[in-house]
Amino acid sequence: MKALVYEGVETLVYREVPDAVPQQGEHLIRVEAVGICGSDMHAYLGHDSRRPAPLILGHEAAGVVVGGPHDGKRVTINPLVHCGTCASCKAGRENLCPERQIISMPPREGAFAQHVAMPWGNLVEVPDHVPFAKAALAEPLAVSWHAARLALEALHPAMHRRALVIGGGAIGVAAALALSAMGVSDVTIVEPNDLRRHFLQKLGETPVTSKASGMYSIVVDAVGFSATRAVASEHAQPGGVIAHVGLGEDTGGLDVRRMTLQEITFIGTYTYTAQDFRQTAQAIFDGALGALDWIEQRDLADGAEAFAALQSGSVAVPKIVLSPWA
Amino acid sequence: MKALVYEGVETLVYREVPDAVPQQGEHLIRVEAVGICGSDMHAYLGHDSRRPAPLILGHEAAGVVVGGPHDGKRVTINPLVHCGTCASCKAGRENLCPERQIISMPPREGAFAQHVAMPWGNLVEVPDHVPFAKAALAEPLAVSWHAARLALEALHPAMHRRALVIGGGAIGVAAALALSAMGVSDVTIVEPNDLRRHFLQKLGETPVTSKASGMYSIVVDAVGFSATRAVASEHAQPGGVIAHVGLGEDTGGLDVRRMTLQEITFIGTYTYTAQDFRQTAQAIFDGALGALDWIEQRDLADGAEAFAALQSGSVAVPKIVLSPWA
Repeated sequence: MKALVYEGVETLVYREVPDAVPQQGEHLIRVEAVGICGSDMHAYLGHDSRRPAPLILGHEAAGVVVGGPHDGKRVTINPLVHCGTCASCKAGRENLCPERQIISMPPREGAFAQHVAMPWGNLVEVPDHVPFAKAALAEPLAVSWHAARLALEALHPAMHRRALVIGGGAIGVAAALALSAMGVSDVTIVEPNDLRRHFLQKLGETPVTSKASGMYSIVVDAVGFSATRAVASEHAQPGGVIAHVGLGEDTGGLDVRRMTLQEITFIGTYTYTAQDFRQTAQAIFDGALGALDWIEQRDLADGAEAFAALQSGSVAVPKIVLSPWA
Repeated sequence: MKALVYEGVETLVYREVPDAVPQQGEHLIRVEAVGICGSDMHAYLGHDSRRPAPLILGHEAAGVVVGGPHDGKRVTINPLVHCGTCASCKAGRENLCPERQIISMPPREGAFAQHVAMPWGNLVEVPDHVPFAKAALAEPLAVSWHAARLALEALHPAMHRRALVIGGGAIGVAAALALSAMGVSDVTIVEPNDLRRHFLQKLGETPVTSKASGMYSIVVDAVGFSATRAVASEHAQPGGVIAHVGLGEDTGGLDVRRMTLQEITFIGTYTYTAQDFRQTAQAIFDGALGALDWIEQRDLADGAEAFAALQSGSVAVPKIVLSPWA
């Protein structure tokens, strides 16, 4: 099969690789759409030691089951494989499973390829009216759904719900949509990149600003750099909650003194539970997360150019989705 | 009246000052016992811009009402004065009141003095069997009670409750006692100071170690320095909670990458709600927080020496309580 292979820092090559082979209990999926994630970009830049070259990246995929009892079913893929038996899995927190694996991280190859193999439990069936490119958004949208849910669960019930989302990439846009779907009517996105901000402003789903101002009971840091955490801890209202999604920089940025004096809660969030993923997929199918027309489709064969464009800051849309069969 | 006045960096003078004068709605209290807090030490070292010299420090006090309808009543003082009308106060989060004041911070003088004035709502009556020195512990114990309560409320119900408390000062010892009173049976304190650790080990209430090891679903950082936050974020179990109390250093220490990948929640905690304070006082009166025999009583007149001794690390007990009428 063809795949986009990460072969070293800033080097992606579209080439022939051995076919994906389903292991016991797994199904082969013909990948129809696969999104580029910030963490793929992180790996591409050589910043993620968990993803050493050579490796097939990509973990936001939807496609069609090939062969077996589910042959022909349209599915979106929960890329997080868990043990199912540990205390975290039993508590419904599969994202904390110590044995967790994710496609695009060894030992599992990713979905920037024509096929990928997954257990049935990781697949959610997609209705015919939902295109694959939107179904592939279930993964990034679930990340944000999870962060939004944790933030709302942690928020004191007496507090007015007013949210700031830092970052207008897919995770930020999705966090705003998830908060809105969960009943938070007052949400603002901060996005300093002019190109992307103007795109989102034209889209008109959520107010977008270039610089944070005011105070918010909920702040989602959908970037995860020291500078964005500084913004988060400056603009979180006393008694408020910061949900932190990104892995941009390992440390720094938080004003711990202010967070202590003003009792601000900071929640590290990673991926999603299996239930978050299913609920997010359902919300997509129901249209509860908007039209999802903030994606751009390109060919997987042109993946290297797409990564370079994202890195240069010249991409207006929050999400590029690649197609392996163009 | 006599008071211990902070007159500049590392300078405390026991001298005559103008008598405390109750304002409308306030009562005069003859201070019988007043503890030295880490934040008094912080101010004494010139590290707290909120407490400029000259100032009477001290906010952990118990005593007797002098005059008025409550004359002669034995009371312990909640030093946090709040407006009672804002959204935070109405939600029972008086510690987040934007108008909050605390004695020992302008415009309110502290309790390292023979008298202090307070509103009745800040006073909790103390039964005769409880000595003033123990009643004065209600304030620091309430800080820890509050942190322990928030940590337990934030902890996922499926997680095994196992707690690490960083710091064997009064806040750390009290956090261990509060967690234990709240049903957490497995609590360990980390205290690197040999003198204090041996004192606590002899006391035998909570296991004490010189260095953290293992993983804990609950970590209380009762110190608040960069180095202790590093320990906290290293030893918090995936999905666990860090409650942060101290104001040692403003930033740094947290391993945000680990906290994100392992979904660790960090809660900044500051003082206590009025209900936390009352519940803590009741727990003291009921003996639910142990014998409280980890205090040493000294004369307020010798306060300067007590501060110097604490600063030099030569004090084994977690708490020195001063008496203004020796």
